[in-house]
Amino acid sequence: MTVQEVQEMVKSIKAKKDKIGGIKQIYFVACGGSLGAFYPAKYFLESESKTFRVGYYTSNEFVHATPKLLGENSMVVLCSHAGNTPETVAAAKLCQSRGATTITFTYTEGSAITKYGDYTVIYEWGPDAICENQKPSIGLRIAFEVLHQVEGYENYEKAVDGFDKIHDIVINAKEHVGQRAKVFAQEYKDEKIIYTMSSGASYGSAYMESICILLEMQWINSSSFHSGEYFHGPFEITDTETPFILLVNEGRTRALDERALTFLNKYGKKIVVLDAKELGLSRIDDTVIEFFNPFLFTNVLDVYNQALAEARKHPLTIRRYMFKMEY
Amino acid sequence: MTVQEVQEMVKSIKAKKDKIGGIKQIYFVACGGSLGAFYPAKYFLESESKTFRVGYYTSNEFVHATPKLLGENSMVVLCSHAGNTPETVAAAKLCQSRGATTITFTYTEGSAITKYGDYTVIYEWGPDAICENQKPSIGLRIAFEVLHQVEGYENYEKAVDGFDKIHDIVINAKEHVGQRAKVFAQEYKDEKIIYTMSSGASYGSAYMESICILLEMQWINSSSFHSGEYFHGPFEITDTETPFILLVNEGRTRALDERALTFLNKYGKKIVVLDAKELGLSRIDDTVIEFFNPFLFTNVLDVYNQALAEARKHPLTIRRYMFKMEY
Repeated sequence: MTVQEVQEMVKSIKAKKDKIGGIKQIYFVACGGSLGAFYPAKYFLESESKTFRVGYYTSNEFVHATPKLLGENSMVVLCSHAGNTPETVAAAKLCQSRGATTITFTYTEGSAITKYGDYTVIYEWGPDAICENQKPSIGLRIAFEVLHQVEGYENYEKAVDGFDKIHDIVINAKEHVGQRAKVFAQEYKDEKIIYTMSSGASYGSAYMESICILLEMQWINSSSFHSGEYFHGPFEITDTETPFILLVNEGRTRALDERALTFLNKYGKKIVVLDAKELGLSRIDDTVIEFFNPFLFTNVLDVYNQALAEARKHPLTIRRYMFKMEY
Repeated sequence: MTVQEVQEMVKSIKAKKDKIGGIKQIYFVACGGSLGAFYPAKYFLESESKTFRVGYYTSNEFVHATPKLLGENSMVVLCSHAGNTPETVAAAKLCQSRGATTITFTYTEGSAITKYGDYTVIYEWGPDAICENQKPSIGLRIAFEVLHQVEGYENYEKAVDGFDKIHDIVINAKEHVGQRAKVFAQEYKDEKIIYTMSSGASYGSAYMESICILLEMQWINSSSFHSGEYFHGPFEITDTETPFILLVNEGRTRALDERALTFLNKYGKKIVVLDAKELGLSRIDDTVIEFFNPFLFTNVLDVYNQALAEARKHPLTIRRYMFKMEY
């Protein structure tokens, strides 16, 4: 979806909603990795918006315990990767029945969820996808756009500029970590548990790495911690045997990640650090840089994940249960 | 804090804020278990409120990446158990400097955080605490009260009635599980990893059990999953060797927990179920019952946790790092 297409879509939604009081609520609704993909957009709006009520729901909870406010002033962004996740399709249908406007993300044109999408976003995915066309990027772009069109966003031009640069930064970073990802894979291939950690907009990246890659695709035990929460419970598990992948952000929450890193360096030993500063994110303007961290991390982690899967002889496509049975 | 005291506190805040446009934002800010304690209140307001913007932040992120909206129309509920958590004290100070009204929770009268509390809540804790005087209950009571006073809440009387009943329900349930908690402790004392899972208002209970008890106090590897998210990644880790503690709610999200239970019963083996229905929560009215699940679970889990600590000869008070060093 091009910049212009996102602008036009938001403009069109705004025009419709303005006749009935405007866009008042923005909900992100999906499951698993598709939900985590919207974390940067949710984080951005919760931080920057002065008028929107923002919600972030796993689809089945949204369907069963629907927020009372859902209605004609709501814009709901939903995602189902293959397009047929039953609870997300049900959520989209519910939204339309309440008069909300739906934007449905999927990579499969014509899939079930698009039936309930007032607007549909077909995104790119996989190792060759253009970063700004991946679902997390388009999610954030919509968030930037809706904030700018409705409230005005003083850093809008810098955000647009960030999208122009992010793909190039990601490509460089992926190349940069190629060798160290192989070393990581050899060193960690026999681990039974790997924790992930980050903060700010990237907490979603830590979550996705934990639930979609380690637990789902590698059957390695895992949890994701928020770097700010680490010191209030989880850090007691730290020792020289327990591996952590730490995503160190550029931007306002960097201090939280650095504090966790300092502690890990002192009391841990198996520490894998992806540092956005070292990976070249600083070409993006300081005022918006924090919101771009997740795109860098998710794509760079992909190099690590491919290497890990290869070293473990456990392809990322293998499942025990998913897509194989009723559940 | 009595019902009347909560009513008066909210009335007083509302009166002040009404002069400048009313209470518009409600933020919950704390770390670890103190944050998790506010999850039911956050969940309730996000579900039921039509006017508030609701936020839920780990303190250090709130301090470093403060939402733009924080200001004189904000009511911020903060908690530090002993009262001196540096980042939560800093958050309370920041809130006051922005003109927000703060309610600071602590069990320590006169502790550092109370200095920045426009209102202070001293709560009960420990095995003999009265359920309705524990911090999660007071948090939810404030949420009920503020919603009722500002918007009107049609189930308010039923909510008040729920608080009248919850302590008795909890006492009965704790007694009811005494024997099975001992069996649990013997069966699971040598486990290296235990997952927790729930949905709705009780996701916070699953989170606290994972980070505060298993990771922090028992050094057992753990993660908490939302029952709705389980099928979108985490369930691939399920096998007959991996233990799960599942908190089955009464109320709207019960279907999500039951779905997880059905799957666990089919493909797992080490499954510990706390079912609010079986534990006697149904004395509380259907319209509000879901919001009371967490108080039941947290208190009943305490019986399990005490038994586990005893069986493992690992007291709940032992720490490697917390309170013992600078971090």
